[in-house]
Amino acid sequence: MKQIEKLIDRVVARVNVNLRSFDFDAEPYARDVIPTKQMLKFDAFYGVTSHHPLRLNFKNSSLAGSYFLGKCFTDNVVLYKTDVRGDELKRKGDVMSVNGVEIPVEKDEEIHIRDSYLIKTLIHNFSHDPEAPEEFVIRNTLASFYSNIHGAPVEGCYIAPFATVDLTSLHGCKVGTFSFVQSATDLYHLEIPDGTIWMKGGTFEFKYTYEKKVLDRYIKSMPNGKPEGLLWDFMEERKGDYADIYNSAVPTAPVTVSSKSALNRYAYVAGDTQIHENVLVSQRAYLDNAWMGPGTNAQEHSYVINSRLEKNDITAHGAKIINANLAEKVFVGFNSFINGKPGMPVSLGKGSMVMPHTIIDVEEPLVIPERHAVWGYIRNADDLKTHSVSLDELSKIDGEVTLGNMQFKGCGEDLVHGFEHRIDHILEANGAYFGDVSKVRGHAQAGHMIAYNTLQPYLTGKMKGIFPTIDIQP
Amino acid sequence: MKQIEKLIDRVVARVNVNLRSFDFDAEPYARDVIPTKQMLKFDAFYGVTSHHPLRLNFKNSSLAGSYFLGKCFTDNVVLYKTDVRGDELKRKGDVMSVNGVEIPVEKDEEIHIRDSYLIKTLIHNFSHDPEAPEEFVIRNTLASFYSNIHGAPVEGCYIAPFATVDLTSLHGCKVGTFSFVQSATDLYHLEIPDGTIWMKGGTFEFKYTYEKKVLDRYIKSMPNGKPEGLLWDFMEERKGDYADIYNSAVPTAPVTVSSKSALNRYAYVAGDTQIHENVLVSQRAYLDNAWMGPGTNAQEHSYVINSRLEKNDITAHGAKIINANLAEKVFVGFNSFINGKPGMPVSLGKGSMVMPHTIIDVEEPLVIPERHAVWGYIRNADDLKTHSVSLDELSKIDGEVTLGNMQFKGCGEDLVHGFEHRIDHILEANGAYFGDVSKVRGHAQAGHMIAYNTLQPYLTGKMKGIFPTIDIQP
Repeated sequence: MKQIEKLIDRVVARVNVNLRSFDFDAEPYARDVIPTKQMLKFDAFYGVTSHHPLRLNFKNSSLAGSYFLGKCFTDNVVLYKTDVRGDELKRKGDVMSVNGVEIPVEKDEEIHIRDSYLIKTLIHNFSHDPEAPEEFVIRNTLASFYSNIHGAPVEGCYIAPFATVDLTSLHGCKVGTFSFVQSATDLYHLEIPDGTIWMKGGTFEFKYTYEKKVLDRYIKSMPNGKPEGLLWDFMEERKGDYADIYNSAVPTAPVTVSSKSALNRYAYVAGDTQIHENVLVSQRAYLDNAWMGPGTNAQEHSYVINSRLEKNDITAHGAKIINANLAEKVFVGFNSFINGKPGMPVSLGKGSMVMPHTIIDVEEPLVIPERHAVWGYIRNADDLKTHSVSLDELSKIDGEVTLGNMQFKGCGEDLVHGFEHRIDHILEANGAYFGDVSKVRGHAQAGHMIAYNTLQPYLTGKMKGIFPTIDIQP
Repeated sequence: MKQIEKLIDRVVARVNVNLRSFDFDAEPYARDVIPTKQMLKFDAFYGVTSHHPLRLNFKNSSLAGSYFLGKCFTDNVVLYKTDVRGDELKRKGDVMSVNGVEIPVEKDEEIHIRDSYLIKTLIHNFSHDPEAPEEFVIRNTLASFYSNIHGAPVEGCYIAPFATVDLTSLHGCKVGTFSFVQSATDLYHLEIPDGTIWMKGGTFEFKYTYEKKVLDRYIKSMPNGKPEGLLWDFMEERKGDYADIYNSAVPTAPVTVSSKSALNRYAYVAGDTQIHENVLVSQRAYLDNAWMGPGTNAQEHSYVINSRLEKNDITAHGAKIINANLAEKVFVGFNSFINGKPGMPVSLGKGSMVMPHTIIDVEEPLVIPERHAVWGYIRNADDLKTHSVSLDELSKIDGEVTLGNMQFKGCGEDLVHGFEHRIDHILEANGAYFGDVSKVRGHAQAGHMIAYNTLQPYLTGKMKGIFPTIDIQP
């Protein structure tokens, strides 16, 4: 296992040198957090479809978690239980538009992941970096439990547990626990404190900060060990439910889905779950008594429990929806935790938006009115007053507004329009509109049938734990 | 599935043109015998260890059955449930000795398999062709159910069900059902009739022919369908027993074995089975109430049921041992069927040799004396008289001898010495002597821990059923 340890050392050293100004040592968050022998236990999966640009290339890679779709090269990488979707990679001939400037894409976009230690992490694709539209590189980065890197090349960063980097290139940044960062510009050597939800567009800025005592109750990063808190416990308690799926070589199909929908073979399905047309249920999504209406989705690591998603609703990566009813076109952002209780459901009105990393943990039945944005920590109708705004009202803001722990600056209309445009893009890309508005297959259709290559590392010898070089091409 | 069909057409056309002098059409033995959609059902496995020379390379390959170990390239191949062991490939610098001439091996031996349709077939390795010591090519060959190609490059051949080609290069040959051929020289455009056991050394020739009515009862090749007969039924009846093994992603270990023994994760183990040291149990071996003493082996597709193998016994590929007791160093050749019955066991004395493709199907308890060779069809002590000879007596033969359906010509001593030498080599290669006589790991030790890459074809689209190109290197 020496090789893996050497690789982890290298990642730690590179992250540390990038973050030297913060006096940060990544080591306690990398070493002994996962026993290296644990890494031998998991196979790597590479998903193959006729719709994804195929190319996997390992080179002395140490370790891979499950599924890669779409192109993906690696160098002397350490990966651990990593999702990499690569399903929206740009193709040669595409044009990327940045501030009205058209940037032609010269060759197919690729993903490279070099020397990065990613613990149970999703990486999406589609580099939003106009300086490198053809590659989506993750380099010398340490990402912790259930953090997301989404459309964002990152270099020399540390991304703490349950944090998200969205559509933003980061260089030498430290992103705090449960923090969300999305910025219209590259970020350099910045530290995002724990529990910060920060969206910075060209013309607006939205910022919310969790109180430390609230955040610690839900998720707290612990050096030399695993995170603690209710969110962590929630996922740990359900971890065992996936065992049968991973132990079986043959996909089990607890429900039948139409060819216009994708139910990933590594998703968990229980209870009276129904999956309608144009639905995407990604790997490690968790559905228990979930009514998934047409065009809805449950993305990687999301949970939908005792809930009804009416139509064209989005459950972003890592979001958890429990005892809730979603009307049409509701957006539930990354890692949000909507925790309705038996007899105290959460109802989300048509077109409402749950900002990323929102925690709704009710003490009473709660109704989110239609076309309202909500954020932060909400337990009851009283909290809702200082943690929501109607989209129409938000659109009218031009200047500075403070509401509880939330600060908004700039043009509200741009945020609302941008968000609505984004939601439509997500729905289209995921296949919600297939056969209706769109003739182009989305992920729901492209992912209906995925073949898997299951790869194992050397089990003995000095290369123990290291994967042979594997090159897969069409 | 068009691509697979095209490939099958090509194999058939090439086989037919090679076998045109026999007025033979391979088509009924290739087409519709296996529904092409059946081919989608099976994953391919590639076994990886630190002891095998690693290199798999597919190129528009259509379909692969399970396990490749050791180097293996392919071109536009069709494979179906194929074993390829590649565990005795020559290495650069080795020297091959042919009739006293030393031939240096210029580069590592490789296996290529080009356009060949191999149905549930084992291919071993180590080309015995002195003209091509560095490659082991199977080309334009159609092999049928449970036939073996062992240490023998073949080109443009048809190998019928349960036939074996051993240590012999064949060019444009047709090998009949349940026939065994081993020749010191290359064979060109030869037809081996059904049920022929033929060993041709430099100085001797052994030939046995099964009566048609006996052969038909045990195995009969049927065009446009599957074979028929007791041997076929025997295997079909036990096919379902492997289901759990293949359905499980995690190896099940019904018995624990020492690190000096290999129990392949795709072997079937039931009953009161014991596996001692230096034992090799290969994939799809079937053990039920089998006492596997030290240094014994059960090679691919072999069966050991209600039997005791004392020490250093060999169960060659496809051999079946039922209700039998083997003393030390007994050799049971390819596809032999030793069918003892409850209360009518078969006892095989020390150093006895069951020639390849022998059928012992008893009507009474039967004892094979020590150091005796047996062959052909044996039901009782009476049959044994005309189907056995002591090795000492055989050694004394110099000339022509006929015994029942067996004809022997030449120097008996050379056959006996050659066989004894071969048995020692097999035992050593399989690891029977490890730690004792030999310090070199055999297959039992090298195969103790095998990692698997499990590969799936495209499930949809025009490439449906075809595998992506996969290149695996150290």
